[in-house]
Amino acid sequence: MSELIDHTLRGSWTPSGAAAAPLSAHALRWLRERIGLVEESTPAVPASLLDVPESALGEAVRAELADVVGDQHVLTEVAPRLGRAGGMSYTDLMRRRTGSELAVPDGVVLPADPEQVQRVLDVCVRHDVAVVPFGGGTSVVGGVSALCGGKAAVIALDVTRLDQLVSIDPVSRIAVFQAGVRAPEAEAVLASHGFTLGHFPQSYERATLGGFAATRSAGQASAGYGRFESMVEGVRLATPAGDWRLGAAPASAAGPDLRQLAVGSEGALGVITEVALRVRPAATEHQYEAWVLDGWQAGADAVRALAQAHALADVTRLSDVDETEVQLELAGGIKARALHTMLRGRGVVEPCMLVLGWEAASRAELKQRRAATLQVLRGLRSVRLGRKAGEAWRANRFAGPRQRDALLDLGVCVETLETATRWSAVSDLRSAVRSAVVRAIGVDRKAPIVMCHISHAYETGASLYFTVLAARDSDDPIAQWQRAKAAAGEAIAERGTITHHHAVGADHLPWLSGEIGTIGVDVLAAAKRAIDPTGILNPGKLIPGREPA
Amino acid sequence: MSELIDHTLRGSWTPSGAAAAPLSAHALRWLRERIGLVEESTPAVPASLLDVPESALGEAVRAELADVVGDQHVLTEVAPRLGRAGGMSYTDLMRRRTGSELAVPDGVVLPADPEQVQRVLDVCVRHDVAVVPFGGGTSVVGGVSALCGGKAAVIALDVTRLDQLVSIDPVSRIAVFQAGVRAPEAEAVLASHGFTLGHFPQSYERATLGGFAATRSAGQASAGYGRFESMVEGVRLATPAGDWRLGAAPASAAGPDLRQLAVGSEGALGVITEVALRVRPAATEHQYEAWVLDGWQAGADAVRALAQAHALADVTRLSDVDETEVQLELAGGIKARALHTMLRGRGVVEPCMLVLGWEAASRAELKQRRAATLQVLRGLRSVRLGRKAGEAWRANRFAGPRQRDALLDLGVCVETLETATRWSAVSDLRSAVRSAVVRAIGVDRKAPIVMCHISHAYETGASLYFTVLAARDSDDPIAQWQRAKAAAGEAIAERGTITHHHAVGADHLPWLSGEIGTIGVDVLAAAKRAIDPTGILNPGKLIPGREPA
Repeated sequence: MSELIDHTLRGSWTPSGAAAAPLSAHALRWLRERIGLVEESTPAVPASLLDVPESALGEAVRAELADVVGDQHVLTEVAPRLGRAGGMSYTDLMRRRTGSELAVPDGVVLPADPEQVQRVLDVCVRHDVAVVPFGGGTSVVGGVSALCGGKAAVIALDVTRLDQLVSIDPVSRIAVFQAGVRAPEAEAVLASHGFTLGHFPQSYERATLGGFAATRSAGQASAGYGRFESMVEGVRLATPAGDWRLGAAPASAAGPDLRQLAVGSEGALGVITEVALRVRPAATEHQYEAWVLDGWQAGADAVRALAQAHALADVTRLSDVDETEVQLELAGGIKARALHTMLRGRGVVEPCMLVLGWEAASRAELKQRRAATLQVLRGLRSVRLGRKAGEAWRANRFAGPRQRDALLDLGVCVETLETATRWSAVSDLRSAVRSAVVRAIGVDRKAPIVMCHISHAYETGASLYFTVLAARDSDDPIAQWQRAKAAAGEAIAERGTITHHHAVGADHLPWLSGEIGTIGVDVLAAAKRAIDPTGILNPGKLIPGREPA
Repeated sequence: MSELIDHTLRGSWTPSGAAAAPLSAHALRWLRERIGLVEESTPAVPASLLDVPESALGEAVRAELADVVGDQHVLTEVAPRLGRAGGMSYTDLMRRRTGSELAVPDGVVLPADPEQVQRVLDVCVRHDVAVVPFGGGTSVVGGVSALCGGKAAVIALDVTRLDQLVSIDPVSRIAVFQAGVRAPEAEAVLASHGFTLGHFPQSYERATLGGFAATRSAGQASAGYGRFESMVEGVRLATPAGDWRLGAAPASAAGPDLRQLAVGSEGALGVITEVALRVRPAATEHQYEAWVLDGWQAGADAVRALAQAHALADVTRLSDVDETEVQLELAGGIKARALHTMLRGRGVVEPCMLVLGWEAASRAELKQRRAATLQVLRGLRSVRLGRKAGEAWRANRFAGPRQRDALLDLGVCVETLETATRWSAVSDLRSAVRSAVVRAIGVDRKAPIVMCHISHAYETGASLYFTVLAARDSDDPIAQWQRAKAAAGEAIAERGTITHHHAVGADHLPWLSGEIGTIGVDVLAAAKRAIDPTGILNPGKLIPGREPA
């Protein structure tokens, strides 16, 4: 954990002992040409130079919290507080690198079990202290910013000591975990029972199961294993109103599905302390390969055909022309040129790479499922690149955050945006976001790269995930991104959901009432008042304009 | 519609022109032996003899409602009011047959579109009139009882004039329907576009799409097509707080999934006026066949193996020994005896019938999917009975309600119960319910038949659906069933959900807070206050003890 705090504090994902994934000379040259790279190094301001306010946590509260969790688990020193001062958005990272506008919690409290979480909340209600639940700290939407919400103080409630497998029911294939278990730890313990969760978002290495549930996470293999909420059989929350357990059966008609209210509640309606999760036999076999479609529309049509035929590979990921180009160039330009020549020879003008990955408990199952996918794909105009490119994607699938660190070091503005919509609106939405971002931050400089992929496909629609690379505006890097975000948000809100798997946090608040209606916002606010009447839980997140100022 | 009202009024499902599905002489003999049949005919009391109170709908309200929907669509005569006096539970039907304890609405209002529904609600808020949304009237949990909730009057808001396809997006495979469209009408219009919904609950012939959504319905082919809530892409509700639309994308992380609050809201949080539904290519091929497993546990294990291998047939329905026996005996005893002899010859002592049905858009697809099912099944000890028995089930799959009418005519107490739980609890739950029902109503008479099937299976668990057949207690038939229901409810609540697809209504209220917690009830009540501050919407349903008395 100390390592986590250390590198979080530095404004980077990469562990302090390791180098950020370095860029090749070719990649650097190419980036400079494409986006007019500024290439100014921006290391973090040393913590000792940051102007961190004194902890506002009073001695009486501190003592009561120590009574609950033990003195050594109430931290008010600067380092652990800085370690929970926000998440992993570009804005969060730049704030840490520049030392400006950091919202630092007044203390960090680390309970050991659900009962302690409940008692910590009880103390915080009595003393009017805001509580920000903190797991892996990987929010990219301001979901773990230490906002005070007008309270006397704010603590980060770090759940990572809730790290136990509670029970496993191999017949029903349900595992109950405490919420602070990190994804790799969950996979390790499940593997020892012959199971897997199959949830592999890019935050995998750090994020916790509770965080996945709180934010409606979707992993890279969601086509095969489902979104995280589809894995949630039950959930337990500590709330100011008491302990709350949901999930009596796999499916129910006992009124609205309140599990789906708890899932996605982002710490504003309770602190998730346990999750009961559907598990599957451990995948012992895998095969990843890459294909190329000619042009975005052909690619999107192919993914749609696979989704509608129920023939998606577990990982199904279509990159547009720009993302395909960036992937090839960042990997090394010579191979990229050879590949382009080969593809042009086969009539492919606008190569869009499609990564397909199957995970299975036996070779026979894998072959069967792969055959179903290829049966659909072969009816379309596609070129198979083979396993090398597919396995290369798999090998690097959690490397994005480290690669981002390298880009941040080089003065690149790099951030992601994501949404989902119906198939009939997918291409229009992609164009609209690209135009909006270019207009917002491409003025007076080289156009940013706005690349896009589909990584989560459904029968009725798909997610769109954008990565933006631009030369950083060194005068006001945060404002630069905020312009892009605002413009993209407007384009998205008109055509789809404001977020497919990153959650609302603080950053998506402006668009929530457009999406769920003012009635929806009123319902969430009413639910919050019922559960958290004094509003201590994660103020300023999830529910627009309903928190005390 | 007049026909619907007429036979609803008679306390039976069977249209007035038709006979209730008659029982054979053999079936009658067998029933008499097994449950000690009373065989007293109980036709409905003629409407003219019922003591129906005058409509309490004041002239001013009536006029305002007529302004909105047209004079001919505000009905205060006895017949249409009696036609909406409750649903289709045994209790409801017996109340109509005996004429006692009937809760009759003060009027029936039939708006033509979502805007009229909204305006009707506005009138009802102003005049403090309770509103019971009414579609097919097939609730078996008291969901459409005309409870007044302390209001000045209560109307049935009949949505069946909202019968239009609003739009269809064949690329995204989404169809938007008005809420009053009945299932067969939806299938007919979808078929003309080459699509199907694939939702075939036993209420299919009468029920409306809005009702499916309001109650989290599950159809007989749910293994293939999913529960109704999984088909809901979007939903529109008229509420006292205004028009509310949800569903911006197939999947979203924009906070809790409020669609899953609207779905299952049972008319207490709004009147569903439109639903956007995922559709699939029309099934042009089907194949149904029956298999036999030896004993309940072997059968349940087989269904579990199919579910966990993702190899379920679209319809997968396992009957326990009792239900298998009843099906055979009611179909004709000679075949049953021949079958038993054959099965004993093959070592099957406790035959449990497994109906498997595949629906597909091509023969090739059907063969492929059937092969996947049989691959799992062949690894188990099972006997194939063949297509005749399977197709016989299919031919009769909506006949249950008519068969129930025949049994009601004969003085049988016949009702169903359903739940769902984890696989590891399925067999214990089945035993517990059987014992509870037998203890509650088997005293001093022959034991009732409590038969059971699994018709909805998931990776982690399954539904259990019980049918109870008992000699009717002619002194107090309703109290007889209420004893059984209460005992079964306790057994269920300890081990699973109080309802898998029948909803809460009024009848399941006693168990809801045990299932979702007092916090869950408070959250629902808070949501209701936000949406429906004066509590006009379907009082006395869904939310325990939160309605004005």
